[in-house]
Amino acid sequence: MIQKGIFITFEGPEGAGKTTVITELAKRLVEEGWNVVLTREPGGIRIAEKIREIILDNNHQEMDAKTEALLYAAARRQHLVEKVIPALDDGFIVLCDRFVDSSLAYQGYARGLGIDEVLLINKFAIANTMPDLTVFFDIDPEEGLARIANNSEREQNRLDKENIQFHRKVYEGYQELIHRYPDRIVTTDASLSELEVTENVWKIIYFQHIKYSNS
Amino acid sequence: MIQKGIFITFEGPEGAGKTTVITELAKRLVEEGWNVVLTREPGGIRIAEKIREIILDNNHQEMDAKTEALLYAAARRQHLVEKVIPALDDGFIVLCDRFVDSSLAYQGYARGLGIDEVLLINKFAIANTMPDLTVFFDIDPEEGLARIANNSEREQNRLDKENIQFHRKVYEGYQELIHRYPDRIVTTDASLSELEVTENVWKIIYFQHIKYSNS
Repeated sequence: MIQKGIFITFEGPEGAGKTTVITELAKRLVEEGWNVVLTREPGGIRIAEKIREIILDNNHQEMDAKTEALLYAAARRQHLVEKVIPALDDGFIVLCDRFVDSSLAYQGYARGLGIDEVLLINKFAIANTMPDLTVFFDIDPEEGLARIANNSEREQNRLDKENIQFHRKVYEGYQELIHRYPDRIVTTDASLSELEVTENVWKIIYFQHIKYSNS
Repeated sequence: MIQKGIFITFEGPEGAGKTTVITELAKRLVEEGWNVVLTREPGGIRIAEKIREIILDNNHQEMDAKTEALLYAAARRQHLVEKVIPALDDGFIVLCDRFVDSSLAYQGYARGLGIDEVLLINKFAIANTMPDLTVFFDIDPEEGLARIANNSEREQNRLDKENIQFHRKVYEGYQELIHRYPDRIVTTDASLSELEVTENVWKIIYFQHIKYSNS
């Protein structure tokens, strides 16, 4: 088994199908005998949950973009300290649904704060705990939003309600990040079937990163 | 009257008597015909109030120092955008009870995150809206805490409950800031009587900064 954990994050537009695929991947890793933590911000950390409530409250239309970016960074920090870092220290594989790249794409690029500016406050929050690998679920933002619209179980929050122009900008922001971090971010075609995406991502994370990680 | 506002902040250890003095100063300025906004973070801004509730909640003993610093910066940003900047744009004198220096002294210095580190995220939050003048209420931290202890109306929050070593470090942090920003921060002896302190601070803010500001 590995000595220190592996930190893998998953990114992509709304409705890219990340959650379903990651859940399946976690199950497979556990079946193979790995210690796995499957999480997403705010990850059940009570302080982070309370911060997220403020961010996503549909009434908070007056929220400034920088306030939003700082709140995400605060929630990220607390989730990292209480859940991600202890798990990595214990040698777990941590699969995290969205992480710093979401802030860079949403607040940095789409809201126009600047990727470097938002990276600055996130570096304060994250310090050295950057993901070992990030899988980008590549799907056309229109197609992603259509999937969400068809999913009546999902409640729309303040960010879901942004218009398509915003979500197109988020997508562009991710393209910028893929260009910027070619070694860390790997893209997978998320327009394929759930089964196909799962297989493809499994190959990426298992054969490229986990199997030979500490052997 | 002045064209653009003046931004004055007030800092100091707990129990330095800032609030009483600032209230008196605001009254005098209004009597002299100035447009004044007297505020303190979170300043009645609902998003900032909600953030402050999370910070000061006595139950949140697990809060990481960086989370705390990011939350203060977020609340500061929202208060600034909704209240301080519009008032300055309208030419008001804005008197603010605590601002960025509190974060630098409390989180940066006393909690050991580093003044420069905490300044970094606050620069993101504040951009160019730094105070024109900051008045430091100089009082021995022990004496300040003794005053609070004698004030039964004041409810103790998570920060009030820190031990005296913490408050001594906060004081040291302020000394470091006074050394760093000699042009912006002016010190006043807050161990004097309320009346004397009020007179002294009035002289500082009125004759040195307001009276000749746009003449």
